[in-house]
Amino acid sequence: MKTLITNANVLDMVGDIPNISKKDILICDSRISKIEENIQDNNIDEIINAKNMIVMPGLVNTHTHLAMSIFRGYKNDIKLIDWLENAIFPVEDKLEQDDIYWNSYLSCLEMIRSGTTTCNDMYFGMNRVIEALEKTGLRGVVAWCITDDSIRDKIERTREYAKIYNNREDSRIKIYVAAHSPYSCDPDTIKLCVDLAKELKTGIHTHLAETKDEEETIINRYGMAGTEYLNSLHVFDVPVVLAHGIYVSDKDIDILKSVKGGISHNPISNCKLSSGICDVVKLRNSGLNVGLGTDGIASTTTLDMFEEMRTASYLQKVNDASSSSMNSYELLKMATIEGAKVLGLDNDIGTLEVGKKADMIFIKTDKIHLCPENDICTNIVYSANGADVDTVIIDGKVIMQNRKMINLDEKEVMKQVRKIAKRLL
Amino acid sequence: MKTLITNANVLDMVGDIPNISKKDILICDSRISKIEENIQDNNIDEIINAKNMIVMPGLVNTHTHLAMSIFRGYKNDIKLIDWLENAIFPVEDKLEQDDIYWNSYLSCLEMIRSGTTTCNDMYFGMNRVIEALEKTGLRGVVAWCITDDSIRDKIERTREYAKIYNNREDSRIKIYVAAHSPYSCDPDTIKLCVDLAKELKTGIHTHLAETKDEEETIINRYGMAGTEYLNSLHVFDVPVVLAHGIYVSDKDIDILKSVKGGISHNPISNCKLSSGICDVVKLRNSGLNVGLGTDGIASTTTLDMFEEMRTASYLQKVNDASSSSMNSYELLKMATIEGAKVLGLDNDIGTLEVGKKADMIFIKTDKIHLCPENDICTNIVYSANGADVDTVIIDGKVIMQNRKMINLDEKEVMKQVRKIAKRLL
Repeated sequence: MKTLITNANVLDMVGDIPNISKKDILICDSRISKIEENIQDNNIDEIINAKNMIVMPGLVNTHTHLAMSIFRGYKNDIKLIDWLENAIFPVEDKLEQDDIYWNSYLSCLEMIRSGTTTCNDMYFGMNRVIEALEKTGLRGVVAWCITDDSIRDKIERTREYAKIYNNREDSRIKIYVAAHSPYSCDPDTIKLCVDLAKELKTGIHTHLAETKDEEETIINRYGMAGTEYLNSLHVFDVPVVLAHGIYVSDKDIDILKSVKGGISHNPISNCKLSSGICDVVKLRNSGLNVGLGTDGIASTTTLDMFEEMRTASYLQKVNDASSSSMNSYELLKMATIEGAKVLGLDNDIGTLEVGKKADMIFIKTDKIHLCPENDICTNIVYSANGADVDTVIIDGKVIMQNRKMINLDEKEVMKQVRKIAKRLL
Repeated sequence: MKTLITNANVLDMVGDIPNISKKDILICDSRISKIEENIQDNNIDEIINAKNMIVMPGLVNTHTHLAMSIFRGYKNDIKLIDWLENAIFPVEDKLEQDDIYWNSYLSCLEMIRSGTTTCNDMYFGMNRVIEALEKTGLRGVVAWCITDDSIRDKIERTREYAKIYNNREDSRIKIYVAAHSPYSCDPDTIKLCVDLAKELKTGIHTHLAETKDEEETIINRYGMAGTEYLNSLHVFDVPVVLAHGIYVSDKDIDILKSVKGGISHNPISNCKLSSGICDVVKLRNSGLNVGLGTDGIASTTTLDMFEEMRTASYLQKVNDASSSSMNSYELLKMATIEGAKVLGLDNDIGTLEVGKKADMIFIKTDKIHLCPENDICTNIVYSANGADVDTVIIDGKVIMQNRKMINLDEKEVMKQVRKIAKRLL
């Protein structure tokens, strides 16, 4: 299958400064085979005209809980502990396998509609999350959330799915091991997770230093901070995705700066749950990869990564008292190639380059709120939103075109999720 | 002219808790004449079916510089002083009258597209700003920005336009007096502005306590803070719109809490220019009206008030370390009726009530990113954006329907603004 994209304004996200140039892009099956002016080829199956569009790499959401879409707007704006104990946990216990599928399916549709082509998910019922990713065509790293409870079963399931998905060249799914967090996993649990990740030659997805309270709990329990605790259990021998990373000391950063993988920064969730402001500039200056993530819809309400980009910038600028903290191109990097590095997928995605997987989005720029075009990257980061994404291609396949989903029944998904919400909430 | 809106889910913004109910709305000329179930009337000119729509009051943007749209994305993310002195001021000096018209026109279109029906503008060339408001059908408070320079002329122009616009019942335009700020207006200038506002029976629009530096400057110059300075010159004898209000002390708040009008909170601008975080909760608890504003596109890049609502919430929650600081309904109030109070327009706009002006927006809710509907207000504040606004009615007139502008040539406006940007930037 050969697809030719013509008249594109290609923002390739390769260099240290923005490079936008008028090019054609040739996709052969799942990969980019040419990015050149006026590509001529006699065996094209489909031509897509990208006139007035910026074509850029799909966005990478480095921390999600897809099945939590059912909680959108549910008992928000209340105290964190009330919210968790009275709104979220009791309902999560009642989620059935089919609920996880439909809820994840809705999240996948929302991600596609807002330009995300890859996500990194941690939840229960991983098999049904995978089913939603397979159905919608998204790329995803998926992990079964492991705490100290029923460990053996979750480890078995992780091993089972890793065997199915991790060694297929054509697989869009990659299985990670999810040790939920340093405060919810005792040393034995963490050790089992590390051993499993080593056995499967994969990485670990965990939460780290999201709140001050949790760090105090860990220090009281183990006499060391969360980062040191994970380090003492050799977690950083394998690639890691560390969600949040707000309360990390200079000593912690010294440990973290050489990890494979990196931090998933979730600015909106950190605000809405009043967790705190992560010092992204400091983390990135240490050499750490920092990607962006939305966390679950339960806390964030939206999966729109454009919102995460600008909120990350707002928080840094006001926190550092410096309007030059982070520029729009750095934010776009965090949402694309740097996120890909965090997930260990940067050989395949995150930039538009020949040989990489064809994961890309078209942003329609001929619009009032994106005019004039003094600086396209700044317009995208600070004034575009998910609704400006016109077309989404993942693994060489057109998933959305002209804002219409190809072969996905949105109405049915909304109907199912509303039914689940009615039953449980 | 009678317009009947049927099947609306009316969010009237009247009470202390959200009230959403299925109603019809009858508009006679510019005002709402009925909000009831199944309105029957034999003389309807136009029927609009609002099925699957939330119909709510139009958003009120309490602080804009409409003519600055040309600067969208221009030299952002640099130090404030560099930006002002090297990017903004030299170009502003070259803006011609026609530039002000086209730039303002583009801002008006962006506001309409994102659900704003009223704005409060301060700039030069007020007559051309008014022309853009008249052309697009927006409601606006407008003021000619007065500093210590060429005062007499600006006062004369303000008086001239106030005579035209301020005493017509059918006028959508209201003229205010703009004393730019305590640091850029000496006591004589402020006094002239106060006298003029009293003469014209109108209010004053000014910047207040936007940065720590400016407050220090004022204290060094006059031995008192900006608020005390304005108070000593009797500014608060007339209604005021005070933009920003970040660096106000408890003593200042004691003065401010009884002003007519209120504060315009501009969270995105405050972040992007790294000005600081305004303690909105404290200001509102003192009894002050706090509306939301975008400031100019130059600093904010967007005029989308949905972005301002959620950013206001994010900043309060993370700053107060409390996820219950501000709820979505309070944010919607700030963007509607509280903004109207700040502008002294709450008798006419800000809620949907019989007798008020028919300024309303339809938000399409049957969408993936707004599903499920556990809490409509939360979904609107945290997951909707300007692109979800389907229809805009101002002063009883349909300005946008099904996202199509009625009789406004967007392409021509973009062409003109691009031409100006090319000439000046």
